[in-house]
Amino acid sequence: MNMNYKLTLQYDGTDFHGWQMQDGRRTVQGELARVLSLLDGRKVSVHGSGRTDAGVHAEAQVASAQLEREFEPEKLCAAINGNLERDVRVIRAEIAPEDFHARYSARGKTYLYRIINARVVSPFWIRYAHNEARELELERMREAACVFLGEHDWTAFSAAQTDTQTRVRCVTELEIDAVWDERGQGKLFELKISANGFLRYMVRSIAGALLAVGRGELDGEMISHALETGERSKLIVTAPACGLTLLRVPYD
Amino acid sequence: MNMNYKLTLQYDGTDFHGWQMQDGRRTVQGELARVLSLLDGRKVSVHGSGRTDAGVHAEAQVASAQLEREFEPEKLCAAINGNLERDVRVIRAEIAPEDFHARYSARGKTYLYRIINARVVSPFWIRYAHNEARELELERMREAACVFLGEHDWTAFSAAQTDTQTRVRCVTELEIDAVWDERGQGKLFELKISANGFLRYMVRSIAGALLAVGRGELDGEMISHALETGERSKLIVTAPACGLTLLRVPYD
Repeated sequence: MNMNYKLTLQYDGTDFHGWQMQDGRRTVQGELARVLSLLDGRKVSVHGSGRTDAGVHAEAQVASAQLEREFEPEKLCAAINGNLERDVRVIRAEIAPEDFHARYSARGKTYLYRIINARVVSPFWIRYAHNEARELELERMREAACVFLGEHDWTAFSAAQTDTQTRVRCVTELEIDAVWDERGQGKLFELKISANGFLRYMVRSIAGALLAVGRGELDGEMISHALETGERSKLIVTAPACGLTLLRVPYD
Repeated sequence: MNMNYKLTLQYDGTDFHGWQMQDGRRTVQGELARVLSLLDGRKVSVHGSGRTDAGVHAEAQVASAQLEREFEPEKLCAAINGNLERDVRVIRAEIAPEDFHARYSARGKTYLYRIINARVVSPFWIRYAHNEARELELERMREAACVFLGEHDWTAFSAAQTDTQTRVRCVTELEIDAVWDERGQGKLFELKISANGFLRYMVRSIAGALLAVGRGELDGEMISHALETGERSKLIVTAPACGLTLLRVPYD
C-alpha cells in the first residue's frame, strides 16, 4: 500500500519558472517530481497547496505525494534535499493520513508582500522585495485595507482567465506594517494577507491597489467600487512577483 | 581644482570577482571606475578602504575618488546608481576633505561572518551565510575567541602571499552571537570582528578556526600556539567567502 507524505518546502523563486510543472522549464513542482520519481523508482505525482508564479518565493509551501516505498521522514527529507539545488529545500517531511491532499485539505493561505519604500534599494533586498520610490502613506493604506476584508467576488483583483468555478473568497486578515530598514535606505513595508483561498494574481493585485493608495492615487471607495462591479480600474496594477512570499498553509 | 568624494557602497558579492579591478572580469572597483569615468568624461581612479574577495559582501564599503566636475552629492549618488546593476549601490555620496583617502584614512574595519548551524539551510541564506551541519558549541567558541583579541602577528591566519610590510594587527572586538533562525532550520551564528586592519583571508581564517573550535577539534591553546609561532595548523581552514560581509569602516 502506498504511503502518503506531507512535505513542507522553502524556495527562493528567483530562478524558477514558478511552481507548476512545464516542459523544458525549471519549476519547483517539476524538480520535486523528478527527485521523488528517482527515489521511488517510478513516476510520482506531486500536489502543491497551490501554484506560485515565476519569481514568487515560499517560506513554507506544502506538497503531498504518494510513494510506494516506505521512507523514514527525516531520511526522506535528506534524500530529497541531496538531489535538489540549494534554492529549494524540503524543511520537513511527515507521514500524512491517507486522504491528506496539499491542495484540497488546505484551510487557507497566508502571503507576505514586501515593499522597500526608498530611493535607493539595498542589493540585499532586490530579490525579495518590490521597490517603490515615491513616499507611501501608511495610514491611508491601513484604512483602505479594511475594505478588502471579508467575503468578496475578486473578479477585479485576479487574472482575466481562470479555471475556478467561483471568484468568491474570504480575506480574513490584512495587516500592513512599516519599519525602518536596518540597511538604512528607507522603510520596509510588509503586507500580510490571509484568506480561505486565493485566485491567480489576487495578492499581487491587492498589493498593487494598496501601493496606489499609499501614493495617493486611489482610495477605499474606488476599491469598494471595483470589488462590487468586478471592473478593474487602470490604477490597479499587478505588483511584481519578487515582492511576494507564500508564508504558510494551515491545515486541520 | 578637483573635488574629492567619499562614497559608501553596498554590494551582494555573489556575482562579482571581488573588489579589485581585473581585466575582463566584473569587479566592484571596475564597475565603479567605469561609471565615474563616464560621468567625469575622463579616466577616474577609485580607491577602496580595502579589497574584498570574490563572493564577499559589503553593507558599507567606502571608496574615494577625485572628480574634475562638481556634483551635488545626492545627484552624484543617483547618477552612479543609474549606471550600475542593482547588486551594487552607492548608498551615500559626500564631499570629502582634499586629503581623504578611503584606504589610508580608515581607522579600522568591522566584518561579520555568518554561519547557519543546521542540517537543512534555508534557500534565503545560501548567498549570505556559510553552512555548518555539525553542532557548534557557542561557549567553547566564545572562550577561544578571547585568544584572538589584541595585537598579534597574523602570519598563521592570513594568505601565504602578502604585499604588506608587517603582519601585526590589533583585533579590538570579537563577539559571537547565536540566535534561533526564524526560518526555523537551526541557529544563525554571527561573528563580529573589528581590527585596526586586516590581512588577506584573516577574517575567514579566524572564522575557520572558530568553526573547528565549535566542533571540538581545536582549542584556545592551539590557537595561541599558531599565533605565536606563525605556523598554521591543518585544522585552520579558510572559511568560505559567502559568509563574510564588510560591515563598516570607521574614519575620524
